[in-house]
Amino acid sequence: MASKVRLFIDTPLALEQIIELSETQSHYLSNVMKLKLNDKFLGFDGKSGEYELQITQLAKKHLEAKVIQKQKSFQTPPDVWLLFAPVKKDQTDFIIQKAVELGVCKLIPTITRYTISDKTKTERFVAQSIEAAEQCRRVDIPQVLPAKSLSEILSNWDKTRPLYYMDESRTGLPVKDAFSAAPAPIALLVGPEGGFSKEELKLLRQLDFATGVTLGPRILRAETAVVAALSCWQALSGDWVNYKEQNECDF
Amino acid sequence: MASKVRLFIDTPLALEQIIELSETQSHYLSNVMKLKLNDKFLGFDGKSGEYELQITQLAKKHLEAKVIQKQKSFQTPPDVWLLFAPVKKDQTDFIIQKAVELGVCKLIPTITRYTISDKTKTERFVAQSIEAAEQCRRVDIPQVLPAKSLSEILSNWDKTRPLYYMDESRTGLPVKDAFSAAPAPIALLVGPEGGFSKEELKLLRQLDFATGVTLGPRILRAETAVVAALSCWQALSGDWVNYKEQNECDF
Repeated sequence: MASKVRLFIDTPLALEQIIELSETQSHYLSNVMKLKLNDKFLGFDGKSGEYELQITQLAKKHLEAKVIQKQKSFQTPPDVWLLFAPVKKDQTDFIIQKAVELGVCKLIPTITRYTISDKTKTERFVAQSIEAAEQCRRVDIPQVLPAKSLSEILSNWDKTRPLYYMDESRTGLPVKDAFSAAPAPIALLVGPEGGFSKEELKLLRQLDFATGVTLGPRILRAETAVVAALSCWQALSGDWVNYKEQNECDF
Repeated sequence: MASKVRLFIDTPLALEQIIELSETQSHYLSNVMKLKLNDKFLGFDGKSGEYELQITQLAKKHLEAKVIQKQKSFQTPPDVWLLFAPVKKDQTDFIIQKAVELGVCKLIPTITRYTISDKTKTERFVAQSIEAAEQCRRVDIPQVLPAKSLSEILSNWDKTRPLYYMDESRTGLPVKDAFSAAPAPIALLVGPEGGFSKEELKLLRQLDFATGVTLGPRILRAETAVVAALSCWQALSGDWVNYKEQNECDF
C-alpha cells in the first residue's frame, strides 16, 4: 500500500468513471513504473479525495483507467501560508517540497532586500508542489502565488491572519511562546540567508498583525528555518496536535 | 560580523597565541576567501570558545594568525543524540548538516532493516559536521560515531537516556505530548524511507526507555522527519525555550 503509485489527476474523479490519462502520466505509469493492464494505482483530483484506479486500456502514449474505489475523503490541512524568500535553485526546490510535506496551504515567494534571486518561476514551483503532494499523500494541492515584494504583500495584508516572521536578530519570542496558542488562519514568513534588512525589521515590528519569532541560539540556513518553523507550528497549533482524529490512513 | 569567515582550528586556542594554520585552511583563507595580511577571522577549537584572529604571516601554503580577542565562551548545546538511518548520499549529507545546525551533540548512523545504504563513511560525516558547525556558529563539534545496527545499539543502551523513535505507523504520541516535558539527556531515532520493519517496531514498543512519536498525518521523507523532530524537541524542551539567557551573540 505505502509503495503504490500515486498521481494527481487534473480532472474531477468519481466512482465507475473511466479516466484518460495525459501523455506524460501514461508514459510514467507504463514505461517508468512498469504498470500493466489491470494493475492498480492511486489518484486524487485535489477536490474530492483519493481513489483507487485500475488500468483498463494500455498503449504507449495512451492509458485509460477506471475509478474503482474511494480510499480517502477530501480534507485540507490547517490554513497556514508560507511566505519565503527564494534562495538558490536547489534550496528553493527543497523549501517547496518540505512546505508541502508539512501541510502548507499557500506558498508565496517573497522578494526581500537581501533575496538573491528575483527570477522565480511560478510554473516550476507549481509542478514541484504537485509532485510533493503526490509523494506525501495529501489529497489537496497547495496554491502557489507569483512572487511579490515584501512591501507589496504587507501593504495589502488581511489583518485577520496573524503573520509570524522568523527574526534572525534574536529579538523575537521563543517558538514555544509564539506558537502554543496560535491557531489557523496564520502565515509564517522566512527571510533569505542574511536575514531581513534593518528597514524591513523596523517595518515588521510596527505592524499590529506581525510577531517576531526566534528559532533558538544557532544560525539556521533559510531552508532549515522553513522546516523548523512549520514543524513547530504544526506540532503546537496545527494538525499534528490531534492527528489521530483527522487521519484516515489505513496503515 | 555575520559574514566573517569562521573556522574550526584543531589546536587549543588562547589569547596572544600565534597559530599556524594547516595547508588546506591557509589555502581557503588566502585563495578562496581572499583574506590579506592583518585581516581578521573567527576561530574556535571546540573546547574553549570562539576567538577573533588576525593574520600575521601570509604565504601561499602557510598562514599564521594571532589570537587577539575572545568572542564567545564555550558552551555545548543540550545533550541530545540523533540516531538516523543513512539514506541516499545527498539526503544523508543534508541530515548531518541540519542536525548540527539544530544542536545535536552526537550523531549515530543506525542500520535498520530497510536502510538502503550500509556503506557509511564516518570520516566524511565528521568533515560535514565540522563544516556545519563552522557555518551555524557553534563553538563545539558534535561527535560522530561509526555506524551500528539498531539491535546492537538497543541492546547496549544506557537506560537513563530516554529514546524517542519517530513512528510512521501512526501509533506514537503527538509531538506536543511527547516533547513538552522531555528534558535532556535524550535521544531521537529517525528510520529510513519506508519506516521501521514490523519486527523493529515490536522490539521498540517493548522497551521501557523507548517512546513512539508521530509527526502528524502526512508522510515525511527521512530528512524532513529529522529536522522536524529536532526542531520540535529544541522548541519544547531544548535550548530554544530560553535561548536569550544562553545566547552571547552580539547582534
